[in-house]
Amino acid sequence: MAGTVEQKLTEQGISLPEPRAAIANYVGFVRSGNLLFVSGQVCANAEGKLIAKGKLGAGVTTEQGYEAAKGCAVNLLAQIKAALGDLDKVVRVVRLGGFVNSAPDFLDGPKVLNGASDLMVAAFGDKGRHARTTVGVASLPADAAVEVEGVFEVS
Amino acid sequence: MAGTVEQKLTEQGISLPEPRAAIANYVGFVRSGNLLFVSGQVCANAEGKLIAKGKLGAGVTTEQGYEAAKGCAVNLLAQIKAALGDLDKVVRVVRLGGFVNSAPDFLDGPKVLNGASDLMVAAFGDKGRHARTTVGVASLPADAAVEVEGVFEVS
Amino acid sequence: MAGTVEQKLTEQGISLPEPRAAIANYVGFVRSGNLLFVSGQVCANAEGKLIAKGKLGAGVTTEQGYEAAKGCAVNLLAQIKAALGDLDKVVRVVRLGGFVNSAPDFLDGPKVLNGASDLMVAAFGDKGRHARTTVGVASLPADAAVEVEGVFEVS
Repeated sequence: MAGTVEQKLTEQGISLPEPRAAIANYVGFVRSGNLLFVSGQVCANAEGKLIAKGKLGAGVTTEQGYEAAKGCAVNLLAQIKAALGDLDKVVRVVRLGGFVNSAPDFLDGPKVLNGASDLMVAAFGDKGRHARTTVGVASLPADAAVEVEGVFEVS
Repeated sequence: MAGTVEQKLTEQGISLPEPRAAIANYVGFVRSGNLLFVSGQVCANAEGKLIAKGKLGAGVTTEQGYEAAKGCAVNLLAQIKAALGDLDKVVRVVRLGGFVNSAPDFLDGPKVLNGASDLMVAAFGDKGRHARTTVGVASLPADAAVEVEGVFEVS
Repeated sequence: MAGTVEQKLTEQGISLPEPRAAIANYVGFVRSGNLLFVSGQVCANAEGKLIAKGKLGAGVTTEQGYEAAKGCAVNLLAQIKAALGDLDKVVRVVRLGGFVNSAPDFLDGPKVLNGASDLMVAAFGDKGRHARTTVGVASLPADAAVEVEGVFEVS
């Protein structure tokens, strides 16, 4: 039973994967009051394969990074759906934290993260606009090119 | 119309720049309840020029990093003013997240971040004391030396 | 006067150190409403000595990193006790942010962070399960191998 937001995504060719199951003593999300904290999501696709692997500035292009960040955002949405049952319960995307697997001289992290930001606005419209922090990190789990975490206000 | 906090800053020779406009599908801040989440601010001055560019431990000194972190904090205040109209509405600086553009052997990130922490206390007094996390990252947008994000309790 | 949670830790041979004092204009924790934000804790033991120093993938093993992350989590608990007086007032571990001092080719950050996640569940049971973000960073303060920050829902 897909809500309005999920239908809008479907029309844009975006379907939500099964959220990645917890594989340790952490979980995909925790709600506290009206805030939903979602764990950092790497850029895996619905089959669990990385959309982009390796470092920006050393093999992975900014365009590939953009698609990877978009994939991270789709995985955030999948966690939200698992948490709330319906993406329509998102009141506001509050904050995204973006981590780009970067060579020391890669400076275009924001262009990469736009892949995640654009997806949030495609899904939620103005409610999808968020505070954001983008940094380039030395390495990411499984050599993922991008990882994105999020905080969401929910009803 | 500057409130008490902003007057105190002015007396210390610190004026607030225009906050950087959103240049993508993210924004400078989002409020949820009494928490204001402010996007990561790089160390740009009022003219938009980086106060320090490059890596700590590879060209940028700790002293230059301190000034850069102070500049990030000024930019956080500019976003708060844009959000609330008056810095006096800050109840507490809750958390700063500090990212230092670092060579792999640079270990003095906390001394750099003190530039941001000291400015918060200069502005808000004891209400300016905050939880803080400091890490050294592989790269930052536009090769900024420092980036700082914040969470603020506001009235 | 140790509560139930602290007694359970004691039975497992884990005692809480004195929390690290603030050495600058930041503090170990800030509470806002029912959320407690705890500053990033490095992997120091009760004597203030680092449990593991240096980079994962360049001298520090994943097993040593696991123990270091566990030490960070013990330090988070020490801050919580300083904040609340009793660990039993923790309603939920909401989020851990884990930063692993990493060589650029180290990919097993999640295995390292499990040291912190496992300790939270050892202390709090199911209430200890949390959202988590793990990244590999270029450097950490004092060359600590691991740093972990946390957000906790408290009563």
